[in-house]
Amino acid sequence: MKIVVLGGDGFCGWPTALRLSRDGHSVTIVDNLSHRRIDQELGVQSLTPITAIEERLAAWQRVSGRTIAFQNIDIARDYDGLAAMLAEQAPDAVVHFAEQRAAPYSMRNAATKRYTIDNNINATHNLLVALVDLGFDTHLVHLGTMGVYGYDGDGLEIPEGYLDVTVSNQAGQSLPRSILYPTQPGSVYHLSKSLDQLLFQFYARNDRLRITDLHQGIVWGTQTEETRLDDALVNRFDYDGDYGTVLNRFLVQAVNGYPLTVHGSGGQTRAFINIQDTVRCVSLALNNPPPPGDRVRITNQLAETQSVRAVAAMVAGITGVPIANVDNPRKEGESNTLRASNQTFRGLGLDLILLKDALLNETLEIVERYKDRFNPEVVPARSLWTRDNRPGLVPGLGEGITK
Amino acid sequence: MKIVVLGGDGFCGWPTALRLSRDGHSVTIVDNLSHRRIDQELGVQSLTPITAIEERLAAWQRVSGRTIAFQNIDIARDYDGLAAMLAEQAPDAVVHFAEQRAAPYSMRNAATKRYTIDNNINATHNLLVALVDLGFDTHLVHLGTMGVYGYDGDGLEIPEGYLDVTVSNQAGQSLPRSILYPTQPGSVYHLSKSLDQLLFQFYARNDRLRITDLHQGIVWGTQTEETRLDDALVNRFDYDGDYGTVLNRFLVQAVNGYPLTVHGSGGQTRAFINIQDTVRCVSLALNNPPPPGDRVRITNQLAETQSVRAVAAMVAGITGVPIANVDNPRKEGESNTLRASNQTFRGLGLDLILLKDALLNETLEIVERYKDRFNPEVVPARSLWTRDNRPGLVPGLGEGITK
Repeated sequence: MKIVVLGGDGFCGWPTALRLSRDGHSVTIVDNLSHRRIDQELGVQSLTPITAIEERLAAWQRVSGRTIAFQNIDIARDYDGLAAMLAEQAPDAVVHFAEQRAAPYSMRNAATKRYTIDNNINATHNLLVALVDLGFDTHLVHLGTMGVYGYDGDGLEIPEGYLDVTVSNQAGQSLPRSILYPTQPGSVYHLSKSLDQLLFQFYARNDRLRITDLHQGIVWGTQTEETRLDDALVNRFDYDGDYGTVLNRFLVQAVNGYPLTVHGSGGQTRAFINIQDTVRCVSLALNNPPPPGDRVRITNQLAETQSVRAVAAMVAGITGVPIANVDNPRKEGESNTLRASNQTFRGLGLDLILLKDALLNETLEIVERYKDRFNPEVVPARSLWTRDNRPGLVPGLGEGITK
Repeated sequence: MKIVVLGGDGFCGWPTALRLSRDGHSVTIVDNLSHRRIDQELGVQSLTPITAIEERLAAWQRVSGRTIAFQNIDIARDYDGLAAMLAEQAPDAVVHFAEQRAAPYSMRNAATKRYTIDNNINATHNLLVALVDLGFDTHLVHLGTMGVYGYDGDGLEIPEGYLDVTVSNQAGQSLPRSILYPTQPGSVYHLSKSLDQLLFQFYARNDRLRITDLHQGIVWGTQTEETRLDDALVNRFDYDGDYGTVLNRFLVQAVNGYPLTVHGSGGQTRAFINIQDTVRCVSLALNNPPPPGDRVRITNQLAETQSVRAVAAMVAGITGVPIANVDNPRKEGESNTLRASNQTFRGLGLDLILLKDALLNETLEIVERYKDRFNPEVVPARSLWTRDNRPGLVPGLGEGITK
């Protein structure tokens, strides 16, 4: 297949592009390198030393003998550039990772809220409009998030995108309906992915675009088979308060001898998936496109659900470091249950990696190796979720993170 | 109250601003005059000769003794200008009409699709972000559309924004939930208002903003008590294929002796409201804000539902002109039923104007008066809804419109 990977320089996009290239697909990465720019803006960097995109691509050619093309296009701002690239490529599939993807960053301030909505919605919409305008039957695979569902915790297993409900009409008849799961996003970032869902629904219905939306859990892990092949191919490892996911922050804290900072009671339950499974799931999705005219295919991309407290306990058990509870900057319940279906990928025979199987490996291999690049000052989350949160409530350097 | 009317130069915004000023509120209109620019772009004009905004405001001061302030700000592009204006005004309420509001225009081509989403979403989001950033408890009243509900026609009366449903959990228990009505927008314009709903839901929940969303039917009529006071205050009357609503197009066709062009069978049923009631409903909404922390208050703003065929028959009955059926450019069913609740405004004692009561009056007073400004060439809709619609299927000048 001819595949364009939008956002192919990022944490999920890069290993996906390598895997698709290894599998013999013709791959073009399109990226505006925005995460590298935001690293500069925030004064943070990946724990792993990622190389320039040109070096990455040269290394891939060296170790695999395969070429991945690259175009630097800001697809949210440069519609003409996007449309010209698509016209030239005429891809069979587009994988769309090209969105601002950190919830805390999206809640930092007015500018980051606006950037997240403006960037993510225009990126997705420009892509949809261009595919329609070109008359292409390209399969669009988008990375969504489990976070669009919200965490109501009423015991319902979260279905894959669509909820079966019953409504009563005025004659007292019960009518069954299958509806998009009513979203309850918890941040502007999650909101942007909820908006994406409605964009996809419209264009699948009006223009018969073939779209798969992958609602992914929190990704952990760093390396894949392909990124391990050369130091210059190493994937990102973010641990800062904006882009670092909870597990990465625990791992760097543990290896460097800091207590593990848990927001609130840690009763928040989340979905998790390993980066290697992200790559496999995207590949499976590409091989199973919905037919034209179908509704958007929504698949949950998770291996397990765990509470933040349980994840902290796992890391503490392996490393022996203590857990420190700090105030939660997010506006959310102290705890929730979360059960979510992942029957599509299970049904395709995927044997997903669990935290308990591979956690130690990740700890030792990556975090130990790049220990000297660790900067404890960037770990705390600094975003205030609402004006109800007083600055004093946000965990500062003095809380939880001191050695 | 101190009230900012965003989009206050437009068809609904202008008469609303006048009414609020007459009622003693301190009113500031903010508008980037985009509809006047789009008139130029499309080569069309309002049947009524609307005057420059400065003339309008001077005339209002002359006839009423009251001053309405005006600021030209593009709220989707100029966040700093918007925030500075809000900081200066510290309004009790903001009425938000500042969106591209024509479904056919939103479906013309790639550029108008992109403009509609980019403009409408950033306008709404910038406003929400600014109110949060300023820490204001301003009541936001937004003009939504009945079109977000879609026209499924399964006999269910459309509720006011929220649908009561039952979901079954894995233990077989039935759980009642009240959810945002699952939207099925029929155009990119309607899609933009569906996206707005999710933005409002998030900011009401996360930041306790007080928001009222008015889901309005198709507006008909032109003048209100205030706009009649002086020729320079006259409201817009759009009849072109993009911005002209169905009734306006029938009226200009009838008065000028053309057959009334009905798309398809005319079985499409829509909600209608007179412009005078729009103004009264907005005023009532302003006087009944939801408390902070409440979910978004959604109110349906309609007086009646009618099929397009029935509306054509009414106009034909009054004027004696024949009806001509032409192909429908929209992707929609040939006919649908539509029943929708308007209990909130009925409950507030509003006696709404019906088509049968006031239609003739409008015909004679406005369309006859400005008959010499009629241009038959701009009446047909030229937007293709999907790539399935061949250009030949779109009603051209040769079909239906020839005298």
